Amino acid sequence: MSEQRIGVGIVGCGTVGSAVADLILQEQAGIAERHNVKLDLVKIYTRNPQGEKSKHLYDTYPDIFTIFLNEVLDDPSIDVVVETMGGRDFPYYYVVRKAVEAGKHVVSANKLLLAYHGEELFELAQERGVHIGYEASVAGAIPIIEVLQKHLVGRQVSSITGILNGTSNYILTQMEKGNRTFGDVLQQAQEKGYAEKNPKEDIEGLDVRNKLVILARLVFGFNFSLDEVYVQGIGDIMTEDFEYANQKLNSTIKLIAHCSQEGGIFVCPMIIPRDHFLANVPSVLNAISIFGKNFGELGLIGLGAGGRPTATSVIADIVKIADRQYIPASNSGAELVKFEDLIFSHTLRFLVKDCVGILKDITTILAEEGISIKAVEQNEYPNSRSNNLPFLITLNPTREKKIQRALEKLNRLPYIVKPVVVFRSFS
Amino acid sequence: MSEQRIGVGIVGCGTVGSAVADLILQEQAGIAERHNVKLDLVKIYTRNPQGEKSKHLYDTYPDIFTIFLNEVLDDPSIDVVVETMGGRDFPYYYVVRKAVEAGKHVVSANKLLLAYHGEELFELAQERGVHIGYEASVAGAIPIIEVLQKHLVGRQVSSITGILNGTSNYILTQMEKGNRTFGDVLQQAQEKGYAEKNPKEDIEGLDVRNKLVILARLVFGFNFSLDEVYVQGIGDIMTEDFEYANQKLNSTIKLIAHCSQEGGIFVCPMIIPRDHFLANVPSVLNAISIFGKNFGELGLIGLGAGGRPTATSVIADIVKIADRQYIPASNSGAELVKFEDLIFSHTLRFLVKDCVGILKDITTILAEEGISIKAVEQNEYPNSRSNNLPFLITLNPTREKKIQRALEKLNRLPYIVKPVVVFRSFS
Repeated sequence: MSEQRIGVGIVGCGTVGSAVADLILQEQAGIAERHNVKLDLVKIYTRNPQGEKSKHLYDTYPDIFTIFLNEVLDDPSIDVVVETMGGRDFPYYYVVRKAVEAGKHVVSANKLLLAYHGEELFELAQERGVHIGYEASVAGAIPIIEVLQKHLVGRQVSSITGILNGTSNYILTQMEKGNRTFGDVLQQAQEKGYAEKNPKEDIEGLDVRNKLVILARLVFGFNFSLDEVYVQGIGDIMTEDFEYANQKLNSTIKLIAHCSQEGGIFVCPMIIPRDHFLANVPSVLNAISIFGKNFGELGLIGLGAGGRPTATSVIADIVKIADRQYIPASNSGAELVKFEDLIFSHTLRFLVKDCVGILKDITTILAEEGISIKAVEQNEYPNSRSNNLPFLITLNPTREKKIQRALEKLNRLPYIVKPVVVFRSFS
Repeated sequence: MSEQRIGVGIVGCGTVGSAVADLILQEQAGIAERHNVKLDLVKIYTRNPQGEKSKHLYDTYPDIFTIFLNEVLDDPSIDVVVETMGGRDFPYYYVVRKAVEAGKHVVSANKLLLAYHGEELFELAQERGVHIGYEASVAGAIPIIEVLQKHLVGRQVSSITGILNGTSNYILTQMEKGNRTFGDVLQQAQEKGYAEKNPKEDIEGLDVRNKLVILARLVFGFNFSLDEVYVQGIGDIMTEDFEYANQKLNSTIKLIAHCSQEGGIFVCPMIIPRDHFLANVPSVLNAISIFGKNFGELGLIGLGAGGRPTATSVIADIVKIADRQYIPASNSGAELVKFEDLIFSHTLRFLVKDCVGILKDITTILAEEGISIKAVEQNEYPNSRSNNLPFLITLNPTREKKIQRALEKLNRLPYIVKPVVVFRSFS
């Protein structure tokens, strides 16, 4: 077989873009030998070729750099445009759209863009007969798109449950390990560069939601807007919550993304039994559990971010495009169960100023909504730093809408110091 | 795009073969919709169509059954032959060879056949322009071949470490959990159908070796015979060994398969730290950890055997063949470090009749071989059933050949009740 040449243009040369360039140069020979494809790095667009991440490349290969975007988009020797700038709308959307319109394949690590504009862009790509690869947009080095598309063929997947954000998983892991507060750990994570200066996307679960939406569309093809995804972040979690989960339930708390036809689509902190592999995913790793009646549970664990790990997924997508080993996105149009109709085992964690009649008020509200109490727990927290000690009410499996209605009332009680925090576990 | 038709013939209709047929019938519509391929189940060969596993199929589709092997091999409407008979030589080898010679693709779940005859059969397939899919031959439902071939492109993989046999992992898990002897658990596993009547292949590590060889050839292309793989089974492990690993090292013992360029290729029980995901792989699951400098560690966990899980991998291979999404095997011809040249942290476990001078003799032998002792441990085993209490010597990192030489001498000492058992951990 004669070797195939694939011209690659990279748009953006930050952490991921520069790692993609490095990896192409490093693996070129191995890829040619094993996959019979020569990856030809034609152009890199960046506003500042002498920037921190691109400098080593610019010093060796100054000619491949350009500060004109159209030199990538218009170059006929470029077959695949790798978009690694990130960001949701202009100019990122424009770059991908223009590349597709020019008949070029696109490989993108941009989950924000794909979560918001994915359906439209996939449709356009199909019209133009090109492919948009997006393995790198979800869970870094973990080949989750590959496995879902190629291995779990047909309609075999019944659910996806995962830890899809390294920053929040790092924070939870450190809070539990060191018995340290959310604020403490977040600050340290920011100093170490594990968390952004503005950590909203990561800790509020929005980054996870974007990734989950990409996976849900791939597997279930649900038609829904991002607003329909229930999202609860990790900012309210206290060290005492880990003590409770650990001591009473032999469990831990993880920020979980879940999607299934019957189980709906949501992102929230969940109580996960210690003996499940998701409970043992350390620090900055990501992990995904896929269920299906034929294959049981399939688990994947790996680095969810970082230049090199993400670049591994970008390169895999490029080679697949070269081999024409891609599968167009499809949409089954199946319907999605609403979050309010789901049933979980809930634990409500209260922070109150102590006074008479609290439990009477709370149990009255729960009874009004037809919610059945399993146990009221006042844990001992020898390490607690809080003046307002938490107490917990665990409930029997309850439909989410009842919980939401009860919460509205509960949060209006005068002695509630902070809004009630809900922890769910699969019932 | 017009739909493609792929004619499938199944040879053997036991646990895996019948599950493949069931799954094709079940997923046909979903596969057609998502992958634009119509799987057409043309023929099933089995000696007894009315057997336990095939009866439900025969009752509904009597016409697809045949008791003549050549009706599958000679049928021009069959594009892919699925070989699910198992076994090493005649007639399994013959079936695959004949199918390839007839220009048909083959999908095989037969690790024994591929470990022994794989190189020759892959070469023949390449000559004839057909493909041999073998995802189902290693780790059941886990898409390890897919991930190694398609995702970790180039020469990125530096090591593979895994638990590749569900029976032995079930036995080890049960021994540890219930503090039960190897013999007890094996007998129960046989009664439950988790272990074969003749469990030699599973408990002596031979089944693991066959799978490891298939993975090693794929990733590293080493040229070696099966005899060069160091193999140590689990039959000598005592409940006291788990107590030691657990209490002293916060670890467990797993039957580990490992292969890397510097780390050689071997199968043996190893001491694995409790916080590594391989230590937490329960019961009949399989798991694989892949390392590479670009992507870090990538872990996969799933069902390693069983009809449906294995059939999932068979179907994935068939769909890939339909899409021409297969990559021929390649051989880099890299050289392999010999097991005797590897360095581990060893623990030697002795069972002795108590008498004077034991420790003097043992330490003398170790000193003669230049082996440095880290600690001598006489554990308390309150639950032990043995009259001859074990004691342990942990060693500083030592080259394997020194250990082998020392073992020869040690096992000749008159008060050694059973051959010394070696536990290794990555040093």
